[in-house]
Amino acid sequence: MPVPGPGYSITVRLESPPSVSAAGDLTTVVGGAGGVLTAFDIVDSTADAIVVDITVNVLSSDHAEDVTAALDSLPDVQVRKVSDRTFLVHLGGKLEVTPKVSLRNRDDLSRAYTPGVARVCQAIAKNPEDARRLTIKRNTVAVVTDGSAVLGLGNIGPAAALPVMEGKAALFKKFAGVDAWPVCLDTQDTEEIIRVVQVLAPVYAGINLEDIAAPRCFEIESRLRQMLDIPVFHDDQHGTAICVTAALRNALRVVDKKMTDCRIVVSGAGAAGSAIMRLLLLQEPADIIAVDIDGIVHPARDNKDDNLRWLADNTNKHHMTGTLHDALVGADVFIGVSAPNLFGAEQVATMADNAIVFALANPDPEIDPVDAHQHAAVVATGRSDYPNQINNVLAFPGVFRGLLDAHATDIDEPMMLAAAEAIADVVGDRLNPSYIVPSVFDTAVAPAVADAVKTAAQKQGQ
Amino acid sequence: MPVPGPGYSITVRLESPPSVSAAGDLTTVVGGAGGVLTAFDIVDSTADAIVVDITVNVLSSDHAEDVTAALDSLPDVQVRKVSDRTFLVHLGGKLEVTPKVSLRNRDDLSRAYTPGVARVCQAIAKNPEDARRLTIKRNTVAVVTDGSAVLGLGNIGPAAALPVMEGKAALFKKFAGVDAWPVCLDTQDTEEIIRVVQVLAPVYAGINLEDIAAPRCFEIESRLRQMLDIPVFHDDQHGTAICVTAALRNALRVVDKKMTDCRIVVSGAGAAGSAIMRLLLLQEPADIIAVDIDGIVHPARDNKDDNLRWLADNTNKHHMTGTLHDALVGADVFIGVSAPNLFGAEQVATMADNAIVFALANPDPEIDPVDAHQHAAVVATGRSDYPNQINNVLAFPGVFRGLLDAHATDIDEPMMLAAAEAIADVVGDRLNPSYIVPSVFDTAVAPAVADAVKTAAQKQGQ
Repeated sequence: MPVPGPGYSITVRLESPPSVSAAGDLTTVVGGAGGVLTAFDIVDSTADAIVVDITVNVLSSDHAEDVTAALDSLPDVQVRKVSDRTFLVHLGGKLEVTPKVSLRNRDDLSRAYTPGVARVCQAIAKNPEDARRLTIKRNTVAVVTDGSAVLGLGNIGPAAALPVMEGKAALFKKFAGVDAWPVCLDTQDTEEIIRVVQVLAPVYAGINLEDIAAPRCFEIESRLRQMLDIPVFHDDQHGTAICVTAALRNALRVVDKKMTDCRIVVSGAGAAGSAIMRLLLLQEPADIIAVDIDGIVHPARDNKDDNLRWLADNTNKHHMTGTLHDALVGADVFIGVSAPNLFGAEQVATMADNAIVFALANPDPEIDPVDAHQHAAVVATGRSDYPNQINNVLAFPGVFRGLLDAHATDIDEPMMLAAAEAIADVVGDRLNPSYIVPSVFDTAVAPAVADAVKTAAQKQGQ
Repeated sequence: MPVPGPGYSITVRLESPPSVSAAGDLTTVVGGAGGVLTAFDIVDSTADAIVVDITVNVLSSDHAEDVTAALDSLPDVQVRKVSDRTFLVHLGGKLEVTPKVSLRNRDDLSRAYTPGVARVCQAIAKNPEDARRLTIKRNTVAVVTDGSAVLGLGNIGPAAALPVMEGKAALFKKFAGVDAWPVCLDTQDTEEIIRVVQVLAPVYAGINLEDIAAPRCFEIESRLRQMLDIPVFHDDQHGTAICVTAALRNALRVVDKKMTDCRIVVSGAGAAGSAIMRLLLLQEPADIIAVDIDGIVHPARDNKDDNLRWLADNTNKHHMTGTLHDALVGADVFIGVSAPNLFGAEQVATMADNAIVFALANPDPEIDPVDAHQHAAVVATGRSDYPNQINNVLAFPGVFRGLLDAHATDIDEPMMLAAAEAIADVVGDRLNPSYIVPSVFDTAVAPAVADAVKTAAQKQGQ
């Protein structure tokens, strides 16, 4: 049974008689309708009536209506207005562009704009590398999407993707001081996306690709990496791979197993799953079994794109065939970035002792974490209402902070592994089966990741 | 003789003996070398020496070296470090991207990002017009350039153009609360620029084209206006035309002439000149004579592009031929957006009585304003060191504020004329031959322009 969370929260303004029992009645009715009351504010009070703002977490818009109707049905209570607090947060957008320079008087204007700015332009024309010193390029990342694979919502297009990209940009600034700007492209043509990003690149010191569908995202990323002299990072791939690697390192510490002894089953061979497997392969696990909607990936089946063919050639040493359930038998680790409710406790029971289960499908994981816990030693999900939330916010702000500070021209796998190690190490002595990754609000994470990535990038540059 | 201004200002840190005469000696030597000393700060003082920061306006980098050398040649004075204050202002860029939402805790994150953001995305997917309400699109303008005609510097490319676009974005925010973002394109192909801007448009509620060379800029602007459902404004054309129209309205008031009685000579038939003429034609002057590098534009000469052919067909009623000097004879108004030093006081003497001269070429005008004043009743330039500076900052912030507030889908000439009128009217009773346009720091300008444009846009929408 899901519990209402703050992601869907309404504020109901209502008028009630000023009776002694009013507050209690209102609270009782909200609870009775399944809402979670989080605030009760008296806005106005007269001899005849009180005006109250009641803030309630709900599950859905139907549920919001139920809660509102229940309140309205109380004797002498009148609901005046219902506000959706999530929408209120988004009104007018979540970012602004703020000048860092003073523009109060003529002297300021002469330096920041004409005529003084002309000399700065000429310096960059003469030495293009100066753009990293004298312009926003120094600290600015493009968050690029075509809106084709947004959250769990699918292909909703560039305008509807914008609230996510704004949120991402806000997190970049909040956690790592990176200026990030949403670039939502009204095209889903691979060649056109590549060309547009190339044409836009002068303003940016890094490209964060976001929510672009597979397999298009692989081609876009690899071609842009070749073309551009700034790092190209696809968060759905690399951010997820870094966070999963970090979590797995710590989970293996908890169960006292070595990566090289583990058979790992990965469910999902899209952007996230493929990147996770590529990063894990560098750490030489005993084997990786990739599973997609057609079952276990092996060389003899019809693998439709380059990515699947590469996985077939580089995983599954013993050419196992069959279903996800077959793959799980005897496996040490399950990592799911695929679809809800693919297996139950009985399949976890077939895994090796001290099994590790990362069920990361969002919002509903591959297995209910409570069921997984019956037989697994460590369980993680992508959800914030269970322990061990694997959230890319742990990686991308610090990764780009490090890349920008190093003036990196590329990002490679040693840098990603360094980032994963840094995230894992922040947990330190607090490590236990319910605490394998730090909290997203742990302010030590981004600087640790940034340092590790910067150091790795500087090694690469030598 | 030009005077050093704050556009080029250096700070010289030096060590000097702590003698009574030291400060006087330093000041004298700066003045002797032609520098304008604007600040004298003692940084450190011991029994043996004082460390001083001397800030000096200079003319050029050679001049900066002369001033520094003169200071260094004083007995016992040692220059330690010279900083260029303009470059210091630009270090790290002039803009940042700031979250408008709180991200302090889990509840904040649930509303501004996942899972709450998903509902906002779905609302926009269902009703795209909601993007203007729930995203940064509401208040955001792209400042788009290909770096082909930047200030007076010419084709310096997208990276070197970025400091200007950042400055522009800073002015948008400062004067009108508009969030503007630099889009510096690494292509100068007309079709590609058009397509890239179209693909980028979902994030923006307006496009400000900037410093794109003519005649390419005409094609880009007109095609984008047809394609997009947001206003497209080319500041070099429309911003300049609005400001010139505003200044001319007031100049005509000063000399008590009617637009319909005036013969106007416009020197320069590029982006700015052409747009000025198109906007003036709507106000039905007696005649307009366009002059370019090949002399007076008339239908019988070889006019190489559509724009010149249009001007030949729509100006110069009596098919006058000849040079700029020929055109000036008997003219009521000269407007120059062309090249330095094209004529002198003797040509102004041939103009009609109470002549108006707008010599707007930057940094050096078509005629020295002091010379122009010998025979003209009103003189204006683009420079900040003479009265009547015609500066686009008067127009573009308020114009876009009005367009955004009206949710305008287009900008047309009635809106531009409304903006011009609003700028002119801010001057009010202060009108005199040296005050035909308000100061760029007059905080009444942008709101007045915004109101006028908003009202005109709402009329169009009806």
